[in-house]
Amino acid sequence: MALLIVAPNRDTQAVQEHLRKQDPTLDIRIWPVIGNANDIDFAVVWKHPPELLTQLPALKAISSYGAGVEGILNDPLLPGDLPVGRISGPRLAADMAEFVTAVIINQHRGLWGFYEDQKAQRWQPWAPVGTPRVGLLGSGNMGAACARVLLSLGYEVHCWNRSGSGELDLTYHRGEAGLQQMASICDFLVCLLPLTEHTQGILNADLFAQMKAGSYLINVGRGDHLVEADLINALDQQQLSGAYLDVFQHEPLPADHPFWSHPGVLMSPHCASFTLPEEAARLIYQSYCQVQQGKGPLDAINRQQGY
Amino acid sequence: MALLIVAPNRDTQAVQEHLRKQDPTLDIRIWPVIGNANDIDFAVVWKHPPELLTQLPALKAISSYGAGVEGILNDPLLPGDLPVGRISGPRLAADMAEFVTAVIINQHRGLWGFYEDQKAQRWQPWAPVGTPRVGLLGSGNMGAACARVLLSLGYEVHCWNRSGSGELDLTYHRGEAGLQQMASICDFLVCLLPLTEHTQGILNADLFAQMKAGSYLINVGRGDHLVEADLINALDQQQLSGAYLDVFQHEPLPADHPFWSHPGVLMSPHCASFTLPEEAARLIYQSYCQVQQGKGPLDAINRQQGY
Repeated sequence: MALLIVAPNRDTQAVQEHLRKQDPTLDIRIWPVIGNANDIDFAVVWKHPPELLTQLPALKAISSYGAGVEGILNDPLLPGDLPVGRISGPRLAADMAEFVTAVIINQHRGLWGFYEDQKAQRWQPWAPVGTPRVGLLGSGNMGAACARVLLSLGYEVHCWNRSGSGELDLTYHRGEAGLQQMASICDFLVCLLPLTEHTQGILNADLFAQMKAGSYLINVGRGDHLVEADLINALDQQQLSGAYLDVFQHEPLPADHPFWSHPGVLMSPHCASFTLPEEAARLIYQSYCQVQQGKGPLDAINRQQGY
Repeated sequence: MALLIVAPNRDTQAVQEHLRKQDPTLDIRIWPVIGNANDIDFAVVWKHPPELLTQLPALKAISSYGAGVEGILNDPLLPGDLPVGRISGPRLAADMAEFVTAVIINQHRGLWGFYEDQKAQRWQPWAPVGTPRVGLLGSGNMGAACARVLLSLGYEVHCWNRSGSGELDLTYHRGEAGLQQMASICDFLVCLLPLTEHTQGILNADLFAQMKAGSYLINVGRGDHLVEADLINALDQQQLSGAYLDVFQHEPLPADHPFWSHPGVLMSPHCASFTLPEEAARLIYQSYCQVQQGKGPLDAINRQQGY
């Protein structure tokens, strides 16, 4: 019984230390040093190398190191019946809500403008009339966390999800018609969807054409949710007033990408929400124990649905 | 019976239109065209001219056009027994909460840094560890609205007020020792106090020396809460990591003021919270009706306390 963690370029040292505090006897292997592969019955992975799964014959379950599982599901070597979980705790969702909230307020209240006004020594008081209407794509942990904070600000919140329903006091939408309807009335659209074959490229020219004139797009889902050329077009034609992007098709964003300097684009380097070592260790250990007890990994996904 | 509105440089036209919708028969006078002064029994004022009150013999009550009343109380011509009210609605408080929330998140999550990184084509993912502890000075409408949103973000919130108690699920402090205690543990201090003889200059070198090393100051109260030279000193000595200022001793901020270009100061031109015509008209009318009924103005203040 051993736990393998595969997370190139992440702080696995800190995760390991937190795991040891929880259980000093835990047999933890950190890729690429995996030892005897026959011991490894649970793996937690993030951007794992292509051949990894052929080396792990004793695996009982696998988990994403974050909230997204597309990197696991897209691996052609994934055994058809292997349970797939994910590590998505309350702090991860709270961080996302925090980030999205700031991006919306900065745009709505003109804080970026004041930032530039200071540099230019301009004193130009300004306030918008009314509160924004925000449409969230997705109502998982992260969507729900965002909705709660936006509701506490007194905003009108809409949400588009698979069922068209949910537990929060907001307006839910479903289906293609529901997405168009929501897009047509909202001042902000925020993509918080999982990446699946159904959601890939969902932020495209058709959707932008439906969006309220002058509205604002925020993508904190995945780079592949967005058809990047369509966004540039929609911004150039002033269909949208701007976009804030945290995720990109290629990360780090290539040096010659037009997003870097497009006047309608603001961006952050994929850190709207970040799996932190302490929370990760707690959830990884919980998931590991569940797998040992034959219960399957924490936050097990529906592989048909893709999330 | 006539209502006088005195608000130089504000959009009194829109307020007037909203008031007419509420009551087309209302006798509204907009300064400086006051007509027969003997008709005027209620005045709503913002930065009123020094001699105004000598011209209004029939006044039954007066109200500030905003949340602060120091401009009225500091008028030496104010009759000792004239009831003083204010216009401070839920939208004014919600706007303040929105603004303060964005400023805190921008600083905590490094959004200003990402903004500069984009210009320099730098891809530098970064996330803080843990959530910030926020100390609010003041727990009136605005303090309470801020506290609610910050609590919804999962932050630890503290509040310093006169009584050292309140209804929200946070830690209250009072007195000089309580202020020092709160300052010493918080990552952010936010001034939302009314301006009185007791709070003038409260953001000074003594307080900065008590503040947690590297913490951040936000002043959205009044310019006179802050000893500006003390702040520059505290920033230069890196006692504080920075400050966001919306209010200043002299507004507009003079062109030669060091705040414009100080690397530790970010600023906005006194618009964290703005009395909007529609809400103002609703509350002014309510206050006017109360005065006519002999009940005194809306949100009447305690003149001894100063707020």
